Amino acid sequence: MTAWNLRSSLRNIRTLSLMSLWPFNVKPRDFSLPNASWRPEMSKVYEYYNALCEIEGDEKRRLWRKLPSYNRVLKYTTGGVYLSKIIQSKARLFTRNIKEPGAAFEYVVFMNKQEKRCVCVFQAGHLLEGPPGHVHGGAVATMIDSVMGTLAGYMSGPVMTANLNINYRSPIPLGSVVLLHSALDRVEGRKFFVTCRVTSTDESKLHTEATD
Amino acid sequence: MTAWNLRSSLRNIRTLSLMSLWPFNVKPRDFSLPNASWRPEMSKVYEYYNALCEIEGDEKRRLWRKLPSYNRVLKYTTGGVYLSKIIQSKARLFTRNIKEPGAAFEYVVFMNKQEKRCVCVFQAGHLLEGPPGHVHGGAVATMIDSVMGTLAGYMSGPVMTANLNINYRSPIPLGSVVLLHSALDRVEGRKFFVTCRVTSTDESKLHTEATD
Repeated sequence: MTAWNLRSSLRNIRTLSLMSLWPFNVKPRDFSLPNASWRPEMSKVYEYYNALCEIEGDEKRRLWRKLPSYNRVLKYTTGGVYLSKIIQSKARLFTRNIKEPGAAFEYVVFMNKQEKRCVCVFQAGHLLEGPPGHVHGGAVATMIDSVMGTLAGYMSGPVMTANLNINYRSPIPLGSVVLLHSALDRVEGRKFFVTCRVTSTDESKLHTEATD
Repeated sequence: MTAWNLRSSLRNIRTLSLMSLWPFNVKPRDFSLPNASWRPEMSKVYEYYNALCEIEGDEKRRLWRKLPSYNRVLKYTTGGVYLSKIIQSKARLFTRNIKEPGAAFEYVVFMNKQEKRCVCVFQAGHLLEGPPGHVHGGAVATMIDSVMGTLAGYMSGPVMTANLNINYRSPIPLGSVVLLHSALDRVEGRKFFVTCRVTSTDESKLHTEATD
């Protein structure tokens, strides 16, 4: 995957974060917290990385961080495209547009900024079907794009995907838990080159691979 | 995109179509029929291609056909992967997993078998957000994968995506109507090479391109 850094081109776009617009001082729901739909395999990997995040010591020197995940990251952008007020108010992040736990994308991203990589634990729900009994190629591409975009964005600020090149090695059965390992390969000017591998949780089986 | 033809490898998998299992003799919902959420731009392109489908003459010699679209294409596959009964009964096609008209993927595919190509009219709903106000790269990849897979499948029988290489040229605003033009480039043994271009409805603007 190649992604463009948008920091310079976004300079004249005013963005308001969700938090500043949220009424009643209620925290928005973090979709990446454990819930009853998680299979034991998902919880086990989550607990492993979560423990790495909670190692005591200097807050700033922790290697791993769990990223929260909301269904509305930014509420408005002014300038650029005209969006009707209705679309603006109803817009939801594609990967978090279904509220029922476990039905679609269940995932958590753990970030390691120093090593310029991240790991995502992903459980594919029954609403992601493509080939009978298996996850849709587009749903796999969606997770890959999201995780690689999250990594590039964490390293540099807002980014936009320029290219996505995906090789499907082995289909993922519906209901499976898999890992996405994403790493920053190199930076050339405003271009970020990121790779991603989708494997079984024990990393023995390669399902999908995205190159830059 | 490259897709593998699965006809030979599927020989020992028994598939039952939805129709044969449907209770009460009720026809399943065709998700590609016009509804109130469609913008005039969407209806206009639909009517243009629909008219081409209805040209009088020999049924077998019609150039264009509108494909129906259900949210459960095949209900069971036996053999291969074990799926729990619950996942099996609740599984829905990824691109048709939201019932609310206009909220997510609104699309219709028109097939031209003789010219080995198809055109898809796609209206991107508010639940497909990625970058603020724009369609998620994964949602675009999902439509591209679906349309190219539909074309390859229509020409050859069941296929599975092997590779997807997408260049994002210009982001698609949420709520837009775009066209996907997909064409069969060549066949090498069991491998199908398909291309896809995502453009504005007047074809003046190239949003996304997928090569083989």
